[in-house]
Amino acid sequence: MTTPLDPRTALPVVAMVGGGQLSRMTHQAAIALGQSLRVLATDPAESAALVAADVQLGDHRDLADLRRLAEGTTVVTFDHEHVPTEHLQALLDAGHRVAPGPAALVHAQDKLVLRRALAAAGEPQPAWAEARTVHDVTAFADEVGWPVVLKTPRGGYDGKGVVVAHGPDEVADLLEQHGALLVEERVEMVRELAAQVARSPFGQVAVWPVVETVQRAGVCNEVLAPAPGLDEELATAAQELAVRIADRLGVVGMLAVELFQTPDGVLVNELAMRPHNSGHWTIEGSRTSQFEQHLRAVLDYPLGSTAMTAPVAVMANVLGGDTAAADWTGPGLDERVHHLMAHWPDVKLHWYGKGQRRGRKLGHVTALGEDLAVVRGRAVAAARYLADGVVDPAFAFPDDHAADEHAADEHAADEH
Amino acid sequence: MTTPLDPRTALPVVAMVGGGQLSRMTHQAAIALGQSLRVLATDPAESAALVAADVQLGDHRDLADLRRLAEGTTVVTFDHEHVPTEHLQALLDAGHRVAPGPAALVHAQDKLVLRRALAAAGEPQPAWAEARTVHDVTAFADEVGWPVVLKTPRGGYDGKGVVVAHGPDEVADLLEQHGALLVEERVEMVRELAAQVARSPFGQVAVWPVVETVQRAGVCNEVLAPAPGLDEELATAAQELAVRIADRLGVVGMLAVELFQTPDGVLVNELAMRPHNSGHWTIEGSRTSQFEQHLRAVLDYPLGSTAMTAPVAVMANVLGGDTAAADWTGPGLDERVHHLMAHWPDVKLHWYGKGQRRGRKLGHVTALGEDLAVVRGRAVAAARYLADGVVDPAFAFPDDHAADEHAADEHAADEH
Repeated sequence: MTTPLDPRTALPVVAMVGGGQLSRMTHQAAIALGQSLRVLATDPAESAALVAADVQLGDHRDLADLRRLAEGTTVVTFDHEHVPTEHLQALLDAGHRVAPGPAALVHAQDKLVLRRALAAAGEPQPAWAEARTVHDVTAFADEVGWPVVLKTPRGGYDGKGVVVAHGPDEVADLLEQHGALLVEERVEMVRELAAQVARSPFGQVAVWPVVETVQRAGVCNEVLAPAPGLDEELATAAQELAVRIADRLGVVGMLAVELFQTPDGVLVNELAMRPHNSGHWTIEGSRTSQFEQHLRAVLDYPLGSTAMTAPVAVMANVLGGDTAAADWTGPGLDERVHHLMAHWPDVKLHWYGKGQRRGRKLGHVTALGEDLAVVRGRAVAAARYLADGVVDPAFAFPDDHAADEHAADEHAADEH
Repeated sequence: MTTPLDPRTALPVVAMVGGGQLSRMTHQAAIALGQSLRVLATDPAESAALVAADVQLGDHRDLADLRRLAEGTTVVTFDHEHVPTEHLQALLDAGHRVAPGPAALVHAQDKLVLRRALAAAGEPQPAWAEARTVHDVTAFADEVGWPVVLKTPRGGYDGKGVVVAHGPDEVADLLEQHGALLVEERVEMVRELAAQVARSPFGQVAVWPVVETVQRAGVCNEVLAPAPGLDEELATAAQELAVRIADRLGVVGMLAVELFQTPDGVLVNELAMRPHNSGHWTIEGSRTSQFEQHLRAVLDYPLGSTAMTAPVAVMANVLGGDTAAADWTGPGLDERVHHLMAHWPDVKLHWYGKGQRRGRKLGHVTALGEDLAVVRGRAVAAARYLADGVVDPAFAFPDDHAADEHAADEHAADEH
């Protein structure tokens, strides 16, 4: 049994480090399970802090704050990878449960540690080396050819901490700044995929269909589920790869394996051990969402069905765009939400409540259906309208009046 | 546009009077829309108060508490019908928005007011009369025959405030206790149905499929969506009836029309103007849940698609049963949740976090699928297991070990 339990409800209390949108959506899932997520936020205006009942303000790098968070909870988990390993070990030593544990989590925190582990396991990944000097990089490039990809081992996300270097001139400054770097071949990429699995301490594993993640400027823009046209054998291989990694590393909770699809198969890019942007589609598109599954897994509950609820699901991120500019004079957010709902009554909105800033992940939308082109078109157009206040010409409505009529027609149809 | 908005998010703030499970599930829906529900709860351990960030403790019969609740919100709405009409009028007079407004809401508060309004509109309902004396009741019974049904005009719910009287002897005490009563014929009932609609101030209406509600001892036990075997013409007539009532009464928000199906058609039993137990299935079973739709409607947002996500959805309530007894020695709640998840990985749990008491609505489960008998069997067995700790023989698993294997098989299948 999972102890300690909340004395008010006789059910578990999960603590999540981090107050962003992943924590916000995990709280939503916790509510259905009879729980209330305890959130460690750095600011009361953070996404999850705006909606959760049990919010503790504090710093995820401060052991005292982490100890306070863990007190009386069933298990501690994360919406990001930035908690120092030694603090997690201290929580374990004090008898708290931490999921994923520090020995697993370090593979999502440090890209060099991940590369070594995958090499030891013989799993497919890009050619790589650890580089401390310009000579290390040029020696590696002599083997694989320029350009090469330089990555900071820790702290990068959403394309930050990744540089494509076309020659030795571009390397010295970066090395000086960071000390050690991971250097990788630039792979011949067909597209990016993600394989998500959940794993419980008992060892049960649940797997979702492999998805395609469409990046723009290093940031996830769309997720197509399942990955369109993916060869069934390759899809199964990618799922099995994700399960092997989860088992070998002892992951507890959600694991997202970001993959490069190449002409020869798939290569592991990086890992996330938490709910992940590539799985937001599961809220509506799967019988069990990644957020509920993460809770089930860290609590050692049996996992839920990962069956899809429709043949196709598309998630599109809303990244702060033209409407986030200080000089934006078009419709405000609330007005844009009105138009969104009028024009796309079937598209599901998820808004994170954060301050609007250019490039920031502010929300996402999900559409479901049968025909990928139609579903994708609706999701992307809705997300773009929220971000930029612009309706893609391919999905334009002539004026608001026509949009209202359109929506009214759809609802008249619903009535019968 | 909807004003005032939350200055932190530039989005609306909905205040809900009442901290029960309807408020709890509405908060879940609010989170996706970028909002955080403001909840008026009477106790910090109430269902919604356990999970919402913005909780005000107070009394829904106290105008000062209601004024404090309304301050700075976009609109005030309800998870029950017990707010005095004059207080709602006072909020309106102070410039607050209240949805549904008191003129509509009174039809869900007072059964005599409802009967008069339906009579004036010529809508189908049981034969009825207002009774102040035993003679009033016997005169009515002389026309329609004994037994008759006596109802308190206000304050009844879940079968409370309803008595079947078989003769004049059973009437006097009740009249003395309540003054005026509503007396109705006992209709020849085939089954009970519910038609749910949402209506916005703009006048947009969205309608879900008509459902069958299965009552046990006056309390909703199961909801079958859509109502099995319901004649299409009668289903449409019931939907149109619900739309006419919503329009005529000026309902804003969700309206549930509880119906008796008789050999000749449908008769209106009573109304609820809020999310309702007969619509819990929409969380998973419809593109837009009743909770999201209620928020959209009271905010005058365009309404969402009410298309079903599967051919059949069944909701089963978990009413406090044997496991709620003080001398229960079987598996505790957390252990029962483990078994539930192991045995029914596709069934969705909604637990309200309330103290366990016999007969109390503690949670519900929803199952989706193609075959009504299978779907209903799974939902009902899962709910019964949570309530009574007993597995229905028709859905028994021989022991925990076999249940684990069964779940493991299902997940192995998911992986491929």
